[in-house]
Amino acid sequence: MSHISLDHANSIIATAFAKGRELGLKPLSVAVLDAGGHLIAFQRQDGASTLRPQIACGKAGGALALGVSSRTIGTMAVERPTFIASVSAMAPQGMVPAAGGVIVVGANGTPIGAVGVTGDTSDNDEICALAGIAAAGLTAQP
Amino acid sequence: MSHISLDHANSIIATAFAKGRELGLKPLSVAVLDAGGHLIAFQRQDGASTLRPQIACGKAGGALALGVSSRTIGTMAVERPTFIASVSAMAPQGMVPAAGGVIVVGANGTPIGAVGVTGDTSDNDEICALAGIAAAGLTAQP
Amino acid sequence: MSHISLDHANSIIATAFAKGRELGLKPLSVAVLDAGGHLIAFQRQDGASTLRPQIACGKAGGALALGVSSRTIGTMAVERPTFIASVSAMAPQGMVPAAGGVIVVGANGTPIGAVGVTGDTSDNDEICALAGIAAAGLTAQP
Amino acid sequence: MSHISLDHANSIIATAFAKGRELGLKPLSVAVLDAGGHLIAFQRQDGASTLRPQIACGKAGGALALGVSSRTIGTMAVERPTFIASVSAMAPQGMVPAAGGVIVVGANGTPIGAVGVTGDTSDNDEICALAGIAAAGLTAQP
Repeated sequence: MSHISLDHANSIIATAFAKGRELGLKPLSVAVLDAGGHLIAFQRQDGASTLRPQIACGKAGGALALGVSSRTIGTMAVERPTFIASVSAMAPQGMVPAAGGVIVVGANGTPIGAVGVTGDTSDNDEICALAGIAAAGLTAQP
Repeated sequence: MSHISLDHANSIIATAFAKGRELGLKPLSVAVLDAGGHLIAFQRQDGASTLRPQIACGKAGGALALGVSSRTIGTMAVERPTFIASVSAMAPQGMVPAAGGVIVVGANGTPIGAVGVTGDTSDNDEICALAGIAAAGLTAQP
Repeated sequence: MSHISLDHANSIIATAFAKGRELGLKPLSVAVLDAGGHLIAFQRQDGASTLRPQIACGKAGGALALGVSSRTIGTMAVERPTFIASVSAMAPQGMVPAAGGVIVVGANGTPIGAVGVTGDTSDNDEICALAGIAAAGLTAQP
Repeated sequence: MSHISLDHANSIIATAFAKGRELGLKPLSVAVLDAGGHLIAFQRQDGASTLRPQIACGKAGGALALGVSSRTIGTMAVERPTFIASVSAMAPQGMVPAAGGVIVVGANGTPIGAVGVTGDTSDNDEICALAGIAAAGLTAQP
């Protein structure tokens, strides 16, 4: 797989929502970005608050910007807060230093996009992102 | 109808894409915003260029910002270019002064959201937006 | 109640100011936003400092952005400072992590707007916001 | 008069709205700023679109920024569009180059604040701003 098609993106979102329902999570918002960080698809469930589009994109876009998951960016933000604050300000969509933003890689391990989920705890958000990626037959960056 | 649900938004996008296929249009991108200009759902068809999310949101968000369609904003931009340039800079998502951004109104005529379509000519973009709104059982602002 | 009218907003502000006088508080500033975070009404009492409009809007707008009161955002900011710093930068009006920003909900529990008060201690600011909401016959998010 | 009190600001807004009703205008939004360009009071009538707060503040704030009415800024924008575009980008609230933003002067002719009205034609907006200033016993900059 060399890129994330719109069909893949919609499938990722549908599965992430199904996982959220299965786990009884709060309303979720899911963004799927291409390798360049540009939005392919987004959905915000009824009842989710207004900044969720930016948070979902900030998790996924931050991951692509630094080449690591937003969970790892969260760890970096604890260790080096001014570094992450600085580079966040440079990223077009900012960065959200909390789990739920996951890079999707192609056959050769190169990023082909990313998924960002927000709405419940960041651990649960990430579970939904990973479920969506796997169900679409794609591979999350280890 | 007092708001646009996620189901409505997905239905609007599906119909807009169907109309695009029927008319043989280029790849489309469609954004559906709530009354406050916050994204509910977005899809970008394979092959569409990278700024399409912002353009779709700028058409729909600009319409909500001024209370008129992006087609009307296009007319205003010809007559009063510095006024539109000025207020565009104040709008969180900017404004795109070209047809394709249409306000959706509720039972009492109050805006409940907006749809922005981009990818083909702005006239064709608007046809797809209107088709999506009608098929979802919603009403475009006259 | 499906939205906050201008009459409601003015009533909220009048009562918040009356409560401030009753308690002998410093000059207050009060913003009332609609569900999308857009200003309906604002008043700044004589003697209040210059940034009060932004602080009042940042309390109310931050609450709507994340779906919780600005008091809760204050707690989150202690526990996860980099997360709140990050999402604040994404919010059009920023976020003020201190009590005084309260979401107003409609009959079905959905946000229909928010009130932000600033000028005295954040606890007192919140007391005035809650007094204003109640006196207007509206309901604060629990 | 050396400054605009909150009572003055509320009186200006009430009269501007009364004038709008008398003339049968569209829903209006009115901002009153102090001499430093900081908001004292704002009201947006039911049915006004979402960007009206920024437009009202941009008319009044732009007037204070350059020391002339927003009507004059509109004329300057026709004659020197790149100049106005440039300085607008520097102004915290931007500038709206259209009538409706009027400076209020004190006894010695010094600016003590400004009023910005938006919602109808810019000529009608200005009529309402001037009516509000006069009814409050204040003086518009000639």
